[in-house]
Amino acid sequence: MSQNEKKYDLIALGRACIDLNAVEYNRPMEETHTFSKYVGGSPANIAIGSAKLGLKVGFIGKIPDDQHGRFIQKFMADAGVDTSGMVVDREGHIAGLAFTEIKSPEECSILMYREGVADLYLQPEEVNEDYIKQAKALLISGTALAQSPSREAVFQAIKFAKKHQVDVIFELDYRSYTWKSVYETSVYYSLVAEQANIVIGTRDEFDMMENRKGDNASTVGYLFRHQAKLIVIKHGVEGSYAYTKSGEIYHGTAYKSKVLKTFGAGDSYAAAFLHALMSGKDIQTALQYGSASAAIVVSKHSCSEAMPTIAEIEALIKANA
Amino acid sequence: MSQNEKKYDLIALGRACIDLNAVEYNRPMEETHTFSKYVGGSPANIAIGSAKLGLKVGFIGKIPDDQHGRFIQKFMADAGVDTSGMVVDREGHIAGLAFTEIKSPEECSILMYREGVADLYLQPEEVNEDYIKQAKALLISGTALAQSPSREAVFQAIKFAKKHQVDVIFELDYRSYTWKSVYETSVYYSLVAEQANIVIGTRDEFDMMENRKGDNASTVGYLFRHQAKLIVIKHGVEGSYAYTKSGEIYHGTAYKSKVLKTFGAGDSYAAAFLHALMSGKDIQTALQYGSASAAIVVSKHSCSEAMPTIAEIEALIKANA
Amino acid sequence: MSQNEKKYDLIALGRACIDLNAVEYNRPMEETHTFSKYVGGSPANIAIGSAKLGLKVGFIGKIPDDQHGRFIQKFMADAGVDTSGMVVDREGHIAGLAFTEIKSPEECSILMYREGVADLYLQPEEVNEDYIKQAKALLISGTALAQSPSREAVFQAIKFAKKHQVDVIFELDYRSYTWKSVYETSVYYSLVAEQANIVIGTRDEFDMMENRKGDNASTVGYLFRHQAKLIVIKHGVEGSYAYTKSGEIYHGTAYKSKVLKTFGAGDSYAAAFLHALMSGKDIQTALQYGSASAAIVVSKHSCSEAMPTIAEIEALIKANA
Amino acid sequence: MSQNEKKYDLIALGRACIDLNAVEYNRPMEETHTFSKYVGGSPANIAIGSAKLGLKVGFIGKIPDDQHGRFIQKFMADAGVDTSGMVVDREGHIAGLAFTEIKSPEECSILMYREGVADLYLQPEEVNEDYIKQAKALLISGTALAQSPSREAVFQAIKFAKKHQVDVIFELDYRSYTWKSVYETSVYYSLVAEQANIVIGTRDEFDMMENRKGDNASTVGYLFRHQAKLIVIKHGVEGSYAYTKSGEIYHGTAYKSKVLKTFGAGDSYAAAFLHALMSGKDIQTALQYGSASAAIVVSKHSCSEAMPTIAEIEALIKANA
Repeated sequence: MSQNEKKYDLIALGRACIDLNAVEYNRPMEETHTFSKYVGGSPANIAIGSAKLGLKVGFIGKIPDDQHGRFIQKFMADAGVDTSGMVVDREGHIAGLAFTEIKSPEECSILMYREGVADLYLQPEEVNEDYIKQAKALLISGTALAQSPSREAVFQAIKFAKKHQVDVIFELDYRSYTWKSVYETSVYYSLVAEQANIVIGTRDEFDMMENRKGDNASTVGYLFRHQAKLIVIKHGVEGSYAYTKSGEIYHGTAYKSKVLKTFGAGDSYAAAFLHALMSGKDIQTALQYGSASAAIVVSKHSCSEAMPTIAEIEALIKANA
Repeated sequence: MSQNEKKYDLIALGRACIDLNAVEYNRPMEETHTFSKYVGGSPANIAIGSAKLGLKVGFIGKIPDDQHGRFIQKFMADAGVDTSGMVVDREGHIAGLAFTEIKSPEECSILMYREGVADLYLQPEEVNEDYIKQAKALLISGTALAQSPSREAVFQAIKFAKKHQVDVIFELDYRSYTWKSVYETSVYYSLVAEQANIVIGTRDEFDMMENRKGDNASTVGYLFRHQAKLIVIKHGVEGSYAYTKSGEIYHGTAYKSKVLKTFGAGDSYAAAFLHALMSGKDIQTALQYGSASAAIVVSKHSCSEAMPTIAEIEALIKANA
Repeated sequence: MSQNEKKYDLIALGRACIDLNAVEYNRPMEETHTFSKYVGGSPANIAIGSAKLGLKVGFIGKIPDDQHGRFIQKFMADAGVDTSGMVVDREGHIAGLAFTEIKSPEECSILMYREGVADLYLQPEEVNEDYIKQAKALLISGTALAQSPSREAVFQAIKFAKKHQVDVIFELDYRSYTWKSVYETSVYYSLVAEQANIVIGTRDEFDMMENRKGDNASTVGYLFRHQAKLIVIKHGVEGSYAYTKSGEIYHGTAYKSKVLKTFGAGDSYAAAFLHALMSGKDIQTALQYGSASAAIVVSKHSCSEAMPTIAEIEALIKANA
Repeated sequence: MSQNEKKYDLIALGRACIDLNAVEYNRPMEETHTFSKYVGGSPANIAIGSAKLGLKVGFIGKIPDDQHGRFIQKFMADAGVDTSGMVVDREGHIAGLAFTEIKSPEECSILMYREGVADLYLQPEEVNEDYIKQAKALLISGTALAQSPSREAVFQAIKFAKKHQVDVIFELDYRSYTWKSVYETSVYYSLVAEQANIVIGTRDEFDMMENRKGDNASTVGYLFRHQAKLIVIKHGVEGSYAYTKSGEIYHGTAYKSKVLKTFGAGDSYAAAFLHALMSGKDIQTALQYGSASAAIVVSKHSCSEAMPTIAEIEALIKANA
């Protein structure tokens, strides 16, 4: 199948959960009385964000057989994400929850419910080869590696992607609470990163993958000896760096914004960066798209619903040019 | 210690959790966008409700070391419940959650989060003998028997109660989702019921205890051969029956009310019934207090916050006299 | 059913396992090359021992669906134990193993395999009421309480015993490696001991039950407030004491013997004591039977196969008279 | 470090367990009364066998802190295997057991004890980089992939091997009872096989790896696209095939022998094949060494103790020339 014939620009694999955002913020969650419900989870946010920007997006994941599961499926479908690759759990697993607490722009925290969550019960035999081969790229969220059988489902999906020349994008998306040991994280992050064509993460996340305090030069040296062709390393307010296998290095600047909370910055970055890349924009532009998108989301209350439009992104870039 | 010297009328043992009630109701939860947070869980509701009615109430339970745990502790303390017997979990367990869905007065359902919940990790060594001996009565919630080590904590608490002539009240509070097998339920419900002085439940709950379709005569016959002196069996709209060891039978009628949802009826019943009993009212009056209290709660949105006052209860009884 | 019409003098409930006894002894197990296979496990040994002495004995337990399971069933049947109450596990559980090491008569140890053992997976619904009601007495081994669902099966069996006036004998049989916490042990040992008519154990085992360093007077005071009528407390070389509800106290002396190993002493004691009691001998004689039987078994290599005959027991008693 | 400076020809990683072989054979195990104790487990057998043939061999694995663990360590050290890479478990895990039953040469079976076994608790941080870099080759046993954390320890070891140009040999060693799902097996077998330089297994085992009924041509085609340079596929009595990346194919014939039991054939095959290869013999000769070694072991009672000498192997080859 040629790239032009592909039905999806991107299929994301991993968790789609529920965010419960404090309606009353700038206070501790103990004093919050009301929560608003959104879809959350890094790969779900990226899928929703990039669909909103115009990419043709699919999703592979497992949702519970309950009201939260049905909400997730409908929300994503309404956002333009193809949900035919989502599997409904039949064993009583639940939707992951993230109660967000915004004490101040600097003090945000999340209270997670991740025990027995459906997304980590996706099984390798539930990953569909025919679905994956219709994509230009498969995006793997690192958290999907945290536990069996979701972990094996990831490797199965990568095997199908490799077989059908589908690019593998690895968004490191490291969440400490889902992992038992740093060694385990490092082992599986390495196994996936070595097979990925594009790897995106923060400097801290790459350090987890390498199980040491590393530096960009050695990280990209390591991954370019395997299958990577493009690596993006994010350094917070210092901006992000893109490295290509052919040796080019790009630096994307970060945009200032009126920060409400820090959640969702990475997801909106990835959505806009990948959209730009897949739309044929150059890497430098893609970096700025990512930064602008992140800056917009942190100024808003939700993550998935706040994913910006191209117009918003370009306006921010122009305003800061 | 004489009964008059006791610091608490009632100490309840079991779960104190979080209710997340759909703000927008008369619709499926999939369409709900906002949830209000309350304290929930049967023994917590009974403790709050009976404290509100004027009893001196304590609580034994385990709460998570997070924002939800702190909210629960503060909410109960503010409601007048002594929380010095509550233990903070240090092993990462979470607060149980109940998302309530009110499609219509007849169609209510609850989406539970009960995996890894702190309340079921109360350990026998965390139950304080000195605390229990200060109570006139210890109320055990059946759900606390669902799992170790909470199950053993219940037996430990009963042992202390027996040693210090504290009455044991068993509120069957059967929730199918917390149990693995009907045999297991029956075994532990029987072991506690045989040691209880007062047993309260619905006919269906007594059937779970006996692991058969039983009838009131044989149920009370069985329990009066052990330590029971008063047994209350609830039959929904047909009202409730109280049986005493000396052979008296009382029938309490149910009150009609404008039902918003069915949650919380049993807890408010128990709170008002026990308050009446402990205030020296006769059994017939206590039954009507229970019925009236239940009728009031089902007409309101929350459970713990909606627990009625004596004035409300007596007004309803008078209006229906 | 009258006692005379009963088909079984005794039905034992609990584990039936495999002993692998070092053929070469008086050395550490590291240097052992050969092991002999026997049936083991306290209640299995008691069943075999008392059947050998002439009691009509049945057994309730769960055995694996493998060669070890079939060996256990055949060995016990050949020893005269009715095995119709034994259930074959269908979930891949295994037989418990005990590798015995005899370094010297003073230094014996056991290497246990107790993970995933079939005996602890006996379910309450696998306990047969019709079987139990045919017994004069039901013997519960404390180890069967160590884990669900075997724990619930014990309580179910006791419920049936009570219903049909079958005496409950509780052999404390405490094995630390099967328990997670001393509080848990104490809770369940107490619950069973309070329902037992005869309780047999070492002073140390009664201390576990009471979760404190106790003394015989307070122990028997506690149990006689419940359903006990006869309590036997063993004090090693100082002999054993029997206490009756009516206030009699008997002291049984211990017999000296050429000790090869210490395993199996308690089981052979119980087998001979119960046989004597059920044969109408007086309590003093029963104590001496127990002591003699224990003295014989510790001088031999195995446990189950070494259970003595009446002639051997009486010969030892006469020789020491 | 040059290959000549390396301290070890081979370091094997995986389980070292206890075999309990029926002393009385040609009968069902139910009728066996005595068992002989040996060290067992595929990688332990290969280590012992190749050490006996003259290779310098090390071992990475986890053994219990008990009599069985100490026996294993001493037995392997006595057989000439360096055991400095073996870790003693401190969490109460046990030695795996294999009770062998020899009903007839055609009917052999094994009763396994694999629940909570120490070998599967080897942790990635317990794998020593300095140890691995001293080896010419690292042999991975497929069973070590069956469970975390041993699974991650394997990937960690491979990472060290790759870093220090140590050849990775993958002995598929598939045992169905250690795996939960064929998909899981296939995922991890593929991940290791794609990194291995030498892969050895039966046709059935390669089918497990590929999760389909495959054929040798496609199997070797797949693996030569990754890092393999030599692949050995065994077809039982039809002999074995060796494939090299450069396109050569060798066929090794099987030797007839007076079969006592079938256990241990694969391990002795691998030991002799690897010894021949590492001693500079050609591939065809190595195949015959493997076949001869297997033929000798199946005619003897044990596995680890029966590993043949070079003289025995060469005598058998000559006798069949």
